[in-house]
Amino acid sequence: MKIIVDSMGGDNAPIEVIKGIVDAIKEYKIDIIVVGNEEVINRELNKYDYPKERIEILDAKDIITNEDDPALAIRRKKDSSMVVGLKALAEGKGDGFLSAGSTGALLAGGLFIVKRIRGIDRAALTTVYPTTNGMSLLVDAGANVDCKPEYLRQFGLMGSTYMENVLGRQNPKVGLVNIGTEVGKGNQLVKDSYYLLKESNMNFVGNIEARTLPQGEADVIVCDGFVGNIILKLTEGVAISFFSELKSIFTSNTKSKIGALLLKPRMKTLKNKMDYREYGGAPLLGIKKPVVKAHGSSDAYAIKNAIKQLVNFIEKDIINIIENEIND
Amino acid sequence: MKIIVDSMGGDNAPIEVIKGIVDAIKEYKIDIIVVGNEEVINRELNKYDYPKERIEILDAKDIITNEDDPALAIRRKKDSSMVVGLKALAEGKGDGFLSAGSTGALLAGGLFIVKRIRGIDRAALTTVYPTTNGMSLLVDAGANVDCKPEYLRQFGLMGSTYMENVLGRQNPKVGLVNIGTEVGKGNQLVKDSYYLLKESNMNFVGNIEARTLPQGEADVIVCDGFVGNIILKLTEGVAISFFSELKSIFTSNTKSKIGALLLKPRMKTLKNKMDYREYGGAPLLGIKKPVVKAHGSSDAYAIKNAIKQLVNFIEKDIINIIENEIND
Repeated sequence: MKIIVDSMGGDNAPIEVIKGIVDAIKEYKIDIIVVGNEEVINRELNKYDYPKERIEILDAKDIITNEDDPALAIRRKKDSSMVVGLKALAEGKGDGFLSAGSTGALLAGGLFIVKRIRGIDRAALTTVYPTTNGMSLLVDAGANVDCKPEYLRQFGLMGSTYMENVLGRQNPKVGLVNIGTEVGKGNQLVKDSYYLLKESNMNFVGNIEARTLPQGEADVIVCDGFVGNIILKLTEGVAISFFSELKSIFTSNTKSKIGALLLKPRMKTLKNKMDYREYGGAPLLGIKKPVVKAHGSSDAYAIKNAIKQLVNFIEKDIINIIENEIND
Repeated sequence: MKIIVDSMGGDNAPIEVIKGIVDAIKEYKIDIIVVGNEEVINRELNKYDYPKERIEILDAKDIITNEDDPALAIRRKKDSSMVVGLKALAEGKGDGFLSAGSTGALLAGGLFIVKRIRGIDRAALTTVYPTTNGMSLLVDAGANVDCKPEYLRQFGLMGSTYMENVLGRQNPKVGLVNIGTEVGKGNQLVKDSYYLLKESNMNFVGNIEARTLPQGEADVIVCDGFVGNIILKLTEGVAISFFSELKSIFTSNTKSKIGALLLKPRMKTLKNKMDYREYGGAPLLGIKKPVVKAHGSSDAYAIKNAIKQLVNFIEKDIINIIENEIND
């Protein structure tokens, strides 16, 4: 198996990305094509001791940044690490692609270069959503801000397939994000989507309220990309506020400081639960090849975990399963 | 000033509602019309010592519950405490109305019985959103799940007026909930709304991301009712999960128990910050008379605070200000 990795995308590229690649190659039975500026890559790789024959470099001098217009950048920055990597993927030079770079550009590149699976209307960004009893999968996390009911049905189907096969949740419960659990609740989009999801061949559990998402009420959370992005970012925002409030409580006086010290080991566990790095990356579902987006602020550990998820994605042949299910 | 209170709505009605009424009448210079089953009300009132001439009873034998279809209940349950109370309000028997009953029914009743302000397209449910530096105001919190850009402009205008005059925030910052801060981001609704809000006579600060809402980035949070309801409920859900995780950490072993004990007073402050009871009720903005919805699980303290907010709402003549601004 050969994985293509964009070494230039993300806040900590290339240093942490390349460290993650080296760690991954030691742990998993894979070869890696590293895309990016050859000199920079060689300089970083030279820091480590690793099986040289299993890492190949694909030179690309340009970089797509978060400031670039995604669609324009994919069209014009032909020599960027992301475009060169995605082209290599489309041409079959590798089995999957990983990038921690611009989400919008990766999505645009996935659509323009790798192309959609036949029968799929929209590709979706699919993110792990940490919950108190593990994790759920959120589809769509921000790729499609204006949706039709049929898209939401496909999100449910793709999410369900991924959750079962890659993340190992048997017969995953698919829930539709709504403002109430009763049938007939919600805006026009979710009202119409409800029936499509219900008639589909998946374990659809109906409407779910946002209040129950953090407790893992559904394994696969279906919503349009506008709502999905808000769910993701609001959860992060509330968590950040909480930890900052706790920090100010824990350091407010000597008594509190002692209390905090006694609680420290357990608090660490809670923080880890919320840590995106533990959960690998976010797959782009609906395109013809496996592509995973790693978090923009990924360190080496997060990159290694995202590579592991990509390996699973490829091994389980998810693209074929989705294609068969959607054209059933 | 005379306030009309539905004594039969809410999980703790009528006991806590009537206790709240008695507490409010001792604290504020108001008279109250209590609507509901006269016998039950008298039985409850007899528990307390209060200035009898300032409380009047308006008999209504029926009750609208959360199980009722809102619009149907308002049309058919003519003798319900909510319908009788709203009619008394519309006829000028009192200056404002408070209920902890069904939100949907209160909204339907507000529209059918009290009617919309001229120039306002949709009435909005407006809720206080607790933040780390105080609170913001969220409009719409769930009344209008499918919106047009003009509605969102009106939500901003009404929210801004209320925030400045009733909640005392000078020149409040109005933000539009979006998936990024850049102009041109978002779904069609928010893209179109952006320009309407920008051209309006309010302190519009542009798009705001959900991540920054808990830190109070905007004083007035504008969004459609579907997104607003999700923001409200997800924030609640994440907070519930957090406190339940903390609880299990705090009780996990002796060391942690001692730590928790040392932190207890400060933790209490954090919990209070998230407590809806501190913030009074949720005004219905856009109808011709002041109506406030108290939280369904309100106790006497929450009812008293909601009455206080209603008093402010009336004193500041918000309806007239909104009517003048919208028809300017």
